[in-house]
Amino acid sequence: MIPELKYNDQGLIPTIVQNISDNEVLMLAYMNKTSLEKTIETGKTHFWSRSRQKFWMKGETSGNVQNVKEILYDCDKDTLLVKVEQVGAGACHTGNRTCFYRTIE
Amino acid sequence: MIPELKYNDQGLIPTIVQNISDNEVLMLAYMNKTSLEKTIETGKTHFWSRSRQKFWMKGETSGNVQNVKEILYDCDKDTLLVKVEQVGAGACHTGNRTCFYRTIE
Repeated sequence: MIPELKYNDQGLIPTIVQNISDNEVLMLAYMNKTSLEKTIETGKTHFWSRSRQKFWMKGETSGNVQNVKEILYDCDKDTLLVKVEQVGAGACHTGNRTCFYRTIE
Repeated sequence: MIPELKYNDQGLIPTIVQNISDNEVLMLAYMNKTSLEKTIETGKTHFWSRSRQKFWMKGETSGNVQNVKEILYDCDKDTLLVKVEQVGAGACHTGNRTCFYRTIE
């Protein structure tokens, strides 16, 4: 059962992806209702690409798919947190394990 | 030095807040340029409230402030990750430690 979520004016909901084994935050991407349904159906993360205006399965080209272990939603119902098992070297297209590899201070 | 970040069309950047002691994801909120500067200056998280259209310091009423330990930005420069020491019972206005306390599956 998917609860009544709050999507933004583009029909999207920000989705934090976290590695379940060590709780590292890997990335943030956007889902819409259909990509959330696909994620639940397949057990692999699917998002909506705002720049390419299309669905994408994480790892569809790199092979670095994300096996979904748990999906949580926040108190406001406007953000998702997906805990995954990250396959391969990492989540970031730069080759880094996490997209958050640079610090401001 | 704050890097050139990509704010959305409302001048906001989604910001994931993570507890530095156990890597638990506590919440997601939105910063603008000024709230990021205030966060860096004061060492406490500051956000922009979309519903109230004003700045808020996390914990300004509850006392559950967040002491900033590290600020990271992602490969696309359109998301922040702030690692904090969470003061008090938790981050969520519901009294939960994290805003992500409910699962979809």
